[in-house]
Amino acid sequence: MLEEIEIVKPEEIEKRSMEIIDSILGETAWTGLELSIVKRCIHTSADFDYAKNLYFSENSAKIAVDALKRGASIITDTKMAASGINKKKLAQLGGSVYCFMDDSDVAREAKARGVTRSSVCMERGMALPGEKIFAVGNAPTALIRLYELIGSGKVSPAAVIGVPVGFVNVEESKQLIMKTAVPCIVAQGRKGGSNIAAAICNALIYAGSGR
Amino acid sequence: MLEEIEIVKPEEIEKRSMEIIDSILGETAWTGLELSIVKRCIHTSADFDYAKNLYFSENSAKIAVDALKRGASIITDTKMAASGINKKKLAQLGGSVYCFMDDSDVAREAKARGVTRSSVCMERGMALPGEKIFAVGNAPTALIRLYELIGSGKVSPAAVIGVPVGFVNVEESKQLIMKTAVPCIVAQGRKGGSNIAAAICNALIYAGSGR
Repeated sequence: MLEEIEIVKPEEIEKRSMEIIDSILGETAWTGLELSIVKRCIHTSADFDYAKNLYFSENSAKIAVDALKRGASIITDTKMAASGINKKKLAQLGGSVYCFMDDSDVAREAKARGVTRSSVCMERGMALPGEKIFAVGNAPTALIRLYELIGSGKVSPAAVIGVPVGFVNVEESKQLIMKTAVPCIVAQGRKGGSNIAAAICNALIYAGSGR
Repeated sequence: MLEEIEIVKPEEIEKRSMEIIDSILGETAWTGLELSIVKRCIHTSADFDYAKNLYFSENSAKIAVDALKRGASIITDTKMAASGINKKKLAQLGGSVYCFMDDSDVAREAKARGVTRSSVCMERGMALPGEKIFAVGNAPTALIRLYELIGSGKVSPAAVIGVPVGFVNVEESKQLIMKTAVPCIVAQGRKGGSNIAAAICNALIYAGSGR
């Protein structure tokens, strides 16, 4: 049975995968940078719903890539996304990834205030210097807190990637962020997650570094 | 608009999510431990395909939980899964998580042999002492290498979680592992990923620690 498996060279696997995704996608309205983001989401999940549920506010992908090229940092609410983002390529552009979820003072403050750690993480990110892209892959509460911080003028992100996953306030949080004037990329509906957040960040980073 | 969002206490969010998943699942053949694993996969992806595509070899979930209770370690081919596994709870049971993907000697050896880093990672895992659960969330080549190592008697995992995602040899690799006598949990088809691997590991760990 092992003999039936065609050996594909490691460096060929991603290319071949993308060709298969192209052939399954067929005719699609997506082009250019947005198409590359859609494909990377499908690549990480094998879920073609991402060809339908992704929302880009006007020019948001290009705006995010330009910010990364200027050295913008990425703040995320999930350690898994932080782990999946290509930090080497991002560093070459001058940026870093920040995730404050495991900081003991974040846990302490969240408990004292009765809010999620993710909300507090967004506030920690807000305080960082320089241009910032927020990538929310887990907690709708992070996206809701961002919406509040944007509304009160306390933070002005270069872009927001809003792809929390789940069942409690997830869709509502995405609708909130889509109503702001901040450039955003959102997976509409319940789907999303750390893998999707990392995939979108990586697609943007690769576009910025001309990979 | 913010006022329309019902505030749910952080500690209530997961419970509420699971209730919603239950209500959407409705009548299901899954029960007990297997149901808890199915639900955690849906919780991390919002993708109800996992109610249909998960395969458990006979008693595999129980066998994996028992191994974890005896202190089995988890070896994974993805840093993201390693990051998402609850290492604190696992340590309380006596186990650790290992991922060798970033080891420089792994990259060197993989390049020299023309194989993937993931394959070499499985060999590194094989050499660890004690009981081992392999959780493959990314590379079908890791699962194929495991199949070979099992077939040649070089490794005898307590259990294999086979949930690589993608388009090149993914389905074939899962079929191979399902043919072995090793207890396995597999997401049939193209779907899977780091988030699914971590979700299954965590469901097993929580069952083992009576959370």
